[in-house]
Amino acid sequence: MYGLIGRMLSVDGQRDALLDLLLEGTGEMPGCVSYIVARDPKDPNGIWITEVWETQAHHMASLKLPAVQTTIAKARPIIAGFAERFETEPVLRS
Amino acid sequence: MYGLIGRMLSVDGQRDALLDLLLEGTGEMPGCVSYIVARDPKDPNGIWITEVWETQAHHMASLKLPAVQTTIAKARPIIAGFAERFETEPVLRS
Repeated sequence: MYGLIGRMLSVDGQRDALLDLLLEGTGEMPGCVSYIVARDPKDPNGIWITEVWETQAHHMASLKLPAVQTTIAKARPIIAGFAERFETEPVLRS
Repeated sequence: MYGLIGRMLSVDGQRDALLDLLLEGTGEMPGCVSYIVARDPKDPNGIWITEVWETQAHHMASLKLPAVQTTIAKARPIIAGFAERFETEPVLRS
């Protein structure tokens, strides 16, 4: 399994719009076991994204999906940057 | 929604034993929407835990569940400490 924990920063006042885009464009991604977005209560522009993928290859492939490409294009103008980023190896219940 | 992202440190050589305990004792927790444990590829003792709860109260209540209390007691001797800890406000797809 492959996992990611990251914090994305929206431009001021655009967090909810960015959250909506992230939720809209990431519904159907092959190999995606979990994709959760969350507000950072300590930063009005912070969004935590925690992901679990069957493999890293599935994650890489998802970046080429039309829906994800559309989301990235729409989101780019309201993304101010990226903060923490951790790769993980999820272990699921057998 | 209430979420947690944290990194727990096992004592040397005990990460897999700690992972097993975490998976074993956290299966049935009221209000738990997601509970994922993962190895930290950069730290042989690091375990990332990402949680989503319906409410913070559900999370607090879970700490009193017999199964969780048993897990905590079993795990305590092989937990060396805690590193990063972030609280979040998950936003789920409608």
